[in-house]
Amino acid sequence: MAFDFTVTPRVADWRDRIAAFIAGTVVPREQEAFAGGVTDELRRELQRAAREAGVWAPQAPAELGGGGFRFDETAVLLEEAGTSLLGPLALNCAAPDEGNLHLLDMVATADQRERYLKPLVAGEVRSCFAMTEPPPGAGSDPAALRTTARRSGDGWVLSGEKHLITGAEGAAFSIVMARDSESGGASMFLVDADNPGFVVGEHARTIDRTTVGGHCRVTLADAVLPADAVLGEPGRGFAHAQVRLAPARLTHCMRWLGAARRAHEIAVERAVEREVFGAPLADQGMAQQLIADNEIDLAAARAMMWHTAWQLAQGSRGTEESSRTKVFVSEAVSRIVDRAVQLAGGMGTSEELVIGRIYADIRAFRIYDGASEVHRMSIAKRVARRTRERLNP
Amino acid sequence: MAFDFTVTPRVADWRDRIAAFIAGTVVPREQEAFAGGVTDELRRELQRAAREAGVWAPQAPAELGGGGFRFDETAVLLEEAGTSLLGPLALNCAAPDEGNLHLLDMVATADQRERYLKPLVAGEVRSCFAMTEPPPGAGSDPAALRTTARRSGDGWVLSGEKHLITGAEGAAFSIVMARDSESGGASMFLVDADNPGFVVGEHARTIDRTTVGGHCRVTLADAVLPADAVLGEPGRGFAHAQVRLAPARLTHCMRWLGAARRAHEIAVERAVEREVFGAPLADQGMAQQLIADNEIDLAAARAMMWHTAWQLAQGSRGTEESSRTKVFVSEAVSRIVDRAVQLAGGMGTSEELVIGRIYADIRAFRIYDGASEVHRMSIAKRVARRTRERLNP
Amino acid sequence: MAFDFTVTPRVADWRDRIAAFIAGTVVPREQEAFAGGVTDELRRELQRAAREAGVWAPQAPAELGGGGFRFDETAVLLEEAGTSLLGPLALNCAAPDEGNLHLLDMVATADQRERYLKPLVAGEVRSCFAMTEPPPGAGSDPAALRTTARRSGDGWVLSGEKHLITGAEGAAFSIVMARDSESGGASMFLVDADNPGFVVGEHARTIDRTTVGGHCRVTLADAVLPADAVLGEPGRGFAHAQVRLAPARLTHCMRWLGAARRAHEIAVERAVEREVFGAPLADQGMAQQLIADNEIDLAAARAMMWHTAWQLAQGSRGTEESSRTKVFVSEAVSRIVDRAVQLAGGMGTSEELVIGRIYADIRAFRIYDGASEVHRMSIAKRVARRTRERLNP
Amino acid sequence: MAFDFTVTPRVADWRDRIAAFIAGTVVPREQEAFAGGVTDELRRELQRAAREAGVWAPQAPAELGGGGFRFDETAVLLEEAGTSLLGPLALNCAAPDEGNLHLLDMVATADQRERYLKPLVAGEVRSCFAMTEPPPGAGSDPAALRTTARRSGDGWVLSGEKHLITGAEGAAFSIVMARDSESGGASMFLVDADNPGFVVGEHARTIDRTTVGGHCRVTLADAVLPADAVLGEPGRGFAHAQVRLAPARLTHCMRWLGAARRAHEIAVERAVEREVFGAPLADQGMAQQLIADNEIDLAAARAMMWHTAWQLAQGSRGTEESSRTKVFVSEAVSRIVDRAVQLAGGMGTSEELVIGRIYADIRAFRIYDGASEVHRMSIAKRVARRTRERLNP
Repeated sequence: MAFDFTVTPRVADWRDRIAAFIAGTVVPREQEAFAGGVTDELRRELQRAAREAGVWAPQAPAELGGGGFRFDETAVLLEEAGTSLLGPLALNCAAPDEGNLHLLDMVATADQRERYLKPLVAGEVRSCFAMTEPPPGAGSDPAALRTTARRSGDGWVLSGEKHLITGAEGAAFSIVMARDSESGGASMFLVDADNPGFVVGEHARTIDRTTVGGHCRVTLADAVLPADAVLGEPGRGFAHAQVRLAPARLTHCMRWLGAARRAHEIAVERAVEREVFGAPLADQGMAQQLIADNEIDLAAARAMMWHTAWQLAQGSRGTEESSRTKVFVSEAVSRIVDRAVQLAGGMGTSEELVIGRIYADIRAFRIYDGASEVHRMSIAKRVARRTRERLNP
Repeated sequence: MAFDFTVTPRVADWRDRIAAFIAGTVVPREQEAFAGGVTDELRRELQRAAREAGVWAPQAPAELGGGGFRFDETAVLLEEAGTSLLGPLALNCAAPDEGNLHLLDMVATADQRERYLKPLVAGEVRSCFAMTEPPPGAGSDPAALRTTARRSGDGWVLSGEKHLITGAEGAAFSIVMARDSESGGASMFLVDADNPGFVVGEHARTIDRTTVGGHCRVTLADAVLPADAVLGEPGRGFAHAQVRLAPARLTHCMRWLGAARRAHEIAVERAVEREVFGAPLADQGMAQQLIADNEIDLAAARAMMWHTAWQLAQGSRGTEESSRTKVFVSEAVSRIVDRAVQLAGGMGTSEELVIGRIYADIRAFRIYDGASEVHRMSIAKRVARRTRERLNP
Repeated sequence: MAFDFTVTPRVADWRDRIAAFIAGTVVPREQEAFAGGVTDELRRELQRAAREAGVWAPQAPAELGGGGFRFDETAVLLEEAGTSLLGPLALNCAAPDEGNLHLLDMVATADQRERYLKPLVAGEVRSCFAMTEPPPGAGSDPAALRTTARRSGDGWVLSGEKHLITGAEGAAFSIVMARDSESGGASMFLVDADNPGFVVGEHARTIDRTTVGGHCRVTLADAVLPADAVLGEPGRGFAHAQVRLAPARLTHCMRWLGAARRAHEIAVERAVEREVFGAPLADQGMAQQLIADNEIDLAAARAMMWHTAWQLAQGSRGTEESSRTKVFVSEAVSRIVDRAVQLAGGMGTSEELVIGRIYADIRAFRIYDGASEVHRMSIAKRVARRTRERLNP
Repeated sequence: MAFDFTVTPRVADWRDRIAAFIAGTVVPREQEAFAGGVTDELRRELQRAAREAGVWAPQAPAELGGGGFRFDETAVLLEEAGTSLLGPLALNCAAPDEGNLHLLDMVATADQRERYLKPLVAGEVRSCFAMTEPPPGAGSDPAALRTTARRSGDGWVLSGEKHLITGAEGAAFSIVMARDSESGGASMFLVDADNPGFVVGEHARTIDRTTVGGHCRVTLADAVLPADAVLGEPGRGFAHAQVRLAPARLTHCMRWLGAARRAHEIAVERAVEREVFGAPLADQGMAQQLIADNEIDLAAARAMMWHTAWQLAQGSRGTEESSRTKVFVSEAVSRIVDRAVQLAGGMGTSEELVIGRIYADIRAFRIYDGASEVHRMSIAKRVARRTRERLNP
């Protein structure tokens, strides 16, 4: 058989239960989180409720206590989880833990699984991923990595500056990318937060509000690590990062698509109830255009995302597809939320209506996990290479 | 199993043979068609070659001599056919015959099948579909239909003015939409071209060039029709039109996506070969952006189209999905071809490079088969209705 | 002589002094305002400094202590003031005081000038403008006004609900729009903040941060007003609002254009200093596109704004021009700041770089003072009316 | 005095007479030109009529028989001329003659003025400008110039290939750019069309139709030229080209803005007359959006164009301003005409409604006289340079 877009009963069941959980349990806690920030206490409460509701970690392997869904099935479920900005956190499928969990599952040793993966998937701890550095270090261009790992006895000493490390404050451990003196390449290290050389500094004062643990400055102040702190193969840090990044890009797409859908739905609800110039706003041409464009963007983004998620589920590395999808979805959700703000009118930028918060929080998605421009460059290079090969076989 | 995007071996085989046929047989005839117009002679030559190449009418039922592919499989094949502006005609999957063929297959009587469907699917004749009228008649708003069918004995007399009737010049017959005096609703009629009351007038001088038979004024000058000229049920013309329109919109998307891909590929070929400011054009940032945006739009349009085609293949009416997809794809292909023109530079608007011709020919797709605005209105109305029902159950 | 775009020496002198004042005095206070909000204490400090720097209230009449500049000259100066989000407040040319000041200058009685205009222009007090109401009241459609003013003896009693009243908290007085029982039309009233019937309620929790006094709920709880509280002619409230709105739209454009220019400049500064993939970011094609598009949008917005400001300075009501300009500039500045965020990369959404704050604060400008959609409707209606008159003279 | 946008009585008088001439004399000849191409016979007829109507060559110096208007005044008049695709030709202010005329007026010797400029300004002959070469020659990157001029006795021998030379067929002479063997730089040469080494080849089959003399291949087949064939200073060809290009870009903007306005007006006329879904199309929201966006783009493009034309009139080289304006106006007119097509519906791509022809003819404007990408690159480089100088004084 050729194409099939059937949602299986198990996926449909989880999707519906996630929807009910978000509506009944998560949404009622949103305003306090917007006002006071997302605390670890709130996180634990919501996570406990999610486990009780049987919607825990849909993307995580079943043997680790997660839903054990295939990646394309996950697309359906994480979109649903994303309809509240707190939903992914509640279900333990939020960045950066979700990506770290996946990476650990792929490359961690048995000991590392026991020590880092198990508590992470259980929601006992949080983690962070420390790759980005302030200029002129690793950012859009990972090769500019400046944090170093030098041998010291059996172990390593890490030194360098990281910034915009999401969730660093309060994380139990961090995966740190550093240039190691031995391989000359990049390696990943597991660093416990209580390592005295792991210093969490200032939070960047960004306009998003619903990330637990902030976007922090992190200093590796000659952090001494044991030999077994290396995650995966030494020197293959960038390759391992790809293992994390292609699916992580997609899970971002899934979650943010849910958030965009939520903004759209709230805006349409207002538009059908509000009368302007003698008719419901939703029945007026320019409002209809905003509504229809949102429906179209949602459908296009979802179709593209499903296709790419299926490719990854088939074992494809999906680099090019995930680049294309990341650019399209991140820009589509920006458009959708922007239109929702406009449709909602005067209260469109408010947190009361939720849309304003989504608008501010979603902006950075066009930048992190590869800025649109970096993905476009990468896509174009691949097309050019293929075209050259076709013309000059 | 959940999602599946596997292309079956039979589809892949046809796709590859269509690609070879387009490249080897159709493309070499493009320039003469651009210069002198598409004649029926050229059509017959190309169609004969297509039958010999075993790529005839992929979308048509197997029992009628076509490929017998499912609608989502057709999506793959018609995209390939569309990579030449003459491809769909050569494969007998071009508008308006392809849509008429489908409609006849759905609603024609045994006699009508014999008389109209068989020669049409065999490529012996061409046909047209006469619905659109000059203002203030049926256009974006089909309900404004003014052509009338009044009873006269057993038969009917049709009177009215149609315009922009694609392929009318040289068509063997036309399906004509008229308001019938009996049901008060709209009915469809099969009108032979040699009916003295079927008068083909001037061609609209539109900027497209590759449609055989023009976009013609057609006068129904009290055309006398026998009783069995009614196609489908009397009074259910609009319902039958929907049978034709939802898939016809999608097949337009398939073909034009192929054309857009072709324009993109030609432009990229030039961009890798051309040096500007000391480097290949394809390696420069703004050119990379044009290239990447085209890749992204192609992938998004294709994913959305596949999903909607699958829904139609499952028996869904797919009105809303096909509206969304028609708007997105028609606007995406416009963007893609526009970028291809820009990337190709000075020769970008020329027929030599083909791109210029695609640019001019593709423009009307955002208008026919439902202008973007009409689809958006329809999409928004459905969303508003659903939202009202949700809020006030 | 025909066109002239010469900036006079006096304008150039003020512009340069404003620039120096913003850079030297206002910018250093931004971060504390972003962190803690804009207090009246900070406002007073900055205003004192502005008076000392000789850049006080450029738009206000000279006889009131302002700069006395023509409206098109004001365009140059308020753009400069807008380069800090605190600049307009410091120079006493911020909304809503600036618009109220202009309105009072046009229609206030001698007593009202003494009591309200003089302290306002001197910066001794702040004010607010209470027109917008929660749905289904006055919003995009002012005619939906529900707040009432009924006669009571010589005076009036005002009752109703307002929301999103910018600056209400801490304002000394408000101009309140209400439907008066006598004229049946709308009238404006001057209401002292200490009137027991003037109740300032909750702040809308919107994503902007740099407005002093919030966007508040205001209840007119049977507020008793004396006879001389009417501002302008009774029943002509909407006409007076137009006196305020057309120039107020433009001054918003001027200030936000400055803010957008600032965001752009900061982003370019980073882009020239930052190396990515072996070259300065600013020299790479897609970054060049962001930079160039910003330059183009800035120039187009400025040219259009100057033209409209000149027309208003000539005494034209400029309704259509100011609608066009408001839509274009509000959308252009959104694009510009969005590109600046993207160009600045990971820190682009942060307050440290200022751009993030501008991004969040500027969003509502496409909604207030007439949403883009309302202006577009109004523009199209005028064009349609003119076209009908031309066709059927 | 500061800004002034007053249109002087003389400009207003010419503008109104041009409008009347276009409507009364030029528009009635459009359809024959669209059908049969623009012949030199039609050109001569229209030009005779223009002289009689007193609207001849508004941009040309008065002492040469033109209108003698300042460049910013010319902006008003050429926009009016551009409202018919044949208007600029009729008034002798069309490309490429208008630019050649300006260039000759700036740099030609007395003899050259007599021999080339006088008949050109009188409309006795046409000319062309041969700079562009097929890849890998001069195109977006003029420095890639490959046509050579080598000394031969007193004179020169020109050899090379040009393409897309507008108006070459039937031109009396050409200004040819070549790399001269003596200076090593580029020089301009006046080449008579009857020079046996000046060979006009095939017309590019581009989708535009209203250019007299096509876009031709031109071969310089060892064309022997006398010493006095050099135009301007040897070796300063690129500098002279700038003299031509900055104003020529602007005059393109002026003319195309007129064409876009015309398309918009025709579309609005249809929209007010056409009823769809029970109401005039022009009164429906999405149509209003198309109409309003066109009004906004027209106003923004005009304001920007006036400003830049004024700067050029003041003697500024205006390189950066004319780049910004060329990009904005060329893209704005594309958007405007595209919206006009959409608004006009089914006949929107037809020549009968004129809009279809404008749509096809206007596309190349985003490519010639500097593709949008080339101008953006140039704009961004200047901004980056200025920013670097500011940061490191």
